[in-house]
Amino acid sequence: MRAAVEASAKQLNYRPNLVAQGLVRGRSNTIGVLTQNMNSLFYGEMVIGIEQQLYQTAYFPLLASGNWNLPNFQTELDALDVLLRRQIDGLIILGGQLADARLQAVAAQLPLILVGRTAAGLKDRSLQIDNYQGAYAAVEYLVQSGHTQIAHITGDMSQTDAQSRYAGYCAALEHAGVGSDPRLIVEGTFQEQGGIQGVETLMERGIAMSAIFAANDSMAHGARLALFRHGLQVPADISLVGFDDQSNSVYCIPPLTTVRQPAFDMGAGAAAAMLRLLEGKPLTLPTITTDLIIRESTRPL
Amino acid sequence: MRAAVEASAKQLNYRPNLVAQGLVRGRSNTIGVLTQNMNSLFYGEMVIGIEQQLYQTAYFPLLASGNWNLPNFQTELDALDVLLRRQIDGLIILGGQLADARLQAVAAQLPLILVGRTAAGLKDRSLQIDNYQGAYAAVEYLVQSGHTQIAHITGDMSQTDAQSRYAGYCAALEHAGVGSDPRLIVEGTFQEQGGIQGVETLMERGIAMSAIFAANDSMAHGARLALFRHGLQVPADISLVGFDDQSNSVYCIPPLTTVRQPAFDMGAGAAAAMLRLLEGKPLTLPTITTDLIIRESTRPL
Repeated sequence: MRAAVEASAKQLNYRPNLVAQGLVRGRSNTIGVLTQNMNSLFYGEMVIGIEQQLYQTAYFPLLASGNWNLPNFQTELDALDVLLRRQIDGLIILGGQLADARLQAVAAQLPLILVGRTAAGLKDRSLQIDNYQGAYAAVEYLVQSGHTQIAHITGDMSQTDAQSRYAGYCAALEHAGVGSDPRLIVEGTFQEQGGIQGVETLMERGIAMSAIFAANDSMAHGARLALFRHGLQVPADISLVGFDDQSNSVYCIPPLTTVRQPAFDMGAGAAAAMLRLLEGKPLTLPTITTDLIIRESTRPL
Repeated sequence: MRAAVEASAKQLNYRPNLVAQGLVRGRSNTIGVLTQNMNSLFYGEMVIGIEQQLYQTAYFPLLASGNWNLPNFQTELDALDVLLRRQIDGLIILGGQLADARLQAVAAQLPLILVGRTAAGLKDRSLQIDNYQGAYAAVEYLVQSGHTQIAHITGDMSQTDAQSRYAGYCAALEHAGVGSDPRLIVEGTFQEQGGIQGVETLMERGIAMSAIFAANDSMAHGARLALFRHGLQVPADISLVGFDDQSNSVYCIPPLTTVRQPAFDMGAGAAAAMLRLLEGKPLTLPTITTDLIIRESTRPL
């Protein structure tokens, strides 16, 4: 009987309405993914990890982006709301700044996995690198290469990853007996313009430096352009280190030394954990580590 | 009565199930978007254009990506299939290589807009730049700057945009009385590695050249790295021109001269056209033009 129905369906090119099936079963086979900018190579790579992990399973990722490139925190709440209204079976949130209480409420409603951020009471649901350790390793490497005047362009300091990377920078300098100098620290934005502005501010301060640690690759690319504008060579005059290892950082001139955050693996790991939750299995999250990728934007002093 | 229900719904934090509402009304308020790589800055910018145009309308974009980074054309068909099964109200397809006949069948089923590609019988549904004219302008500029030995790293020549850009390159050379030399032409892939390989092949051929026109910015970035590896300066030794004006091309060292394809405007224009179709208004598509953006990767010979 089943075979006859299936053969007939095939002949008629019948397309099951998954939405209606989902309503009947109480399932939509859809996993919501709340991401950030659609033009971020870093988040894009995470999404590809999710897609590939879900590929050829029953589940399909439904994407919404949190900031729509508008300078408006409200859009992340809107995107969350839109996803929750679409009868998703689970939700993966990549980064962002939703309040812990809001996330706790979501987690009480449906399976939730956080990537690249955490929240009070949801530590076991969050897949995150050790930002402190990653930054520490980068700055330790610069110190071991003979640098002592190491500037830091931080991320947006309202975000915890920016705070942890800053703490790692300070700790590495302190443990090396170098100490951190506030005149070498400038707050950035996690975007290219923040890197440009960071270099301009450092130049205006007129303090000597031989290396810059930018809190992400996008800012390192901006910093690179600003150094070029000032006629400074990388790495001959200034060593430059980023964070993330975005897919375009290997094509920098010169190729960028950076702390690799395995975005693809993080996305794939989050999706695998979500599938286990949906199958009623115990939650397991992979351990994600960073690696310092030494390319050509740094040199021993 | 309505006000009382709404007040009560608000108090109870009632969340309307849009999926159920959509089934009742025969509408899902969802516009499917079939895009390519999630880590492409170019397609990402198009998606942002769509998102911003739909923002604060009743419609929400549901995204699926066509190639999942797998070297498998089947995935684009799979993604199309998944979207069509989700009861979308309309579909926007960004680029890709789905067969014309398949697209005609889709267009008979629901409102369809094509961006960055066209198909037989669907010319009035497609929003596309003039790839021929864009490439022509880039090469004409190089010729007017005194270059005659201009290499071309093409895109994937199975794609029509690669074919049109190649035709524009040949025509500009021919009209200038320079003529095209097959030894200066190498087929690429539209990806960074294609740009690297293109330069390697040109170097092996050992033919003199003073400029390279890459069929997109990703390949120009790859070509830039390969030239760096060979110790060649841009633009002192080789002028370099791309196509697209991806968001990271202004951060190249030196900033890349390129043919700007307004990805954001194309996405926004496609979404606006879709909204008109869904409201039963006559279809209008904006005219999209390219601009040659002259930065610092080119110089007069």
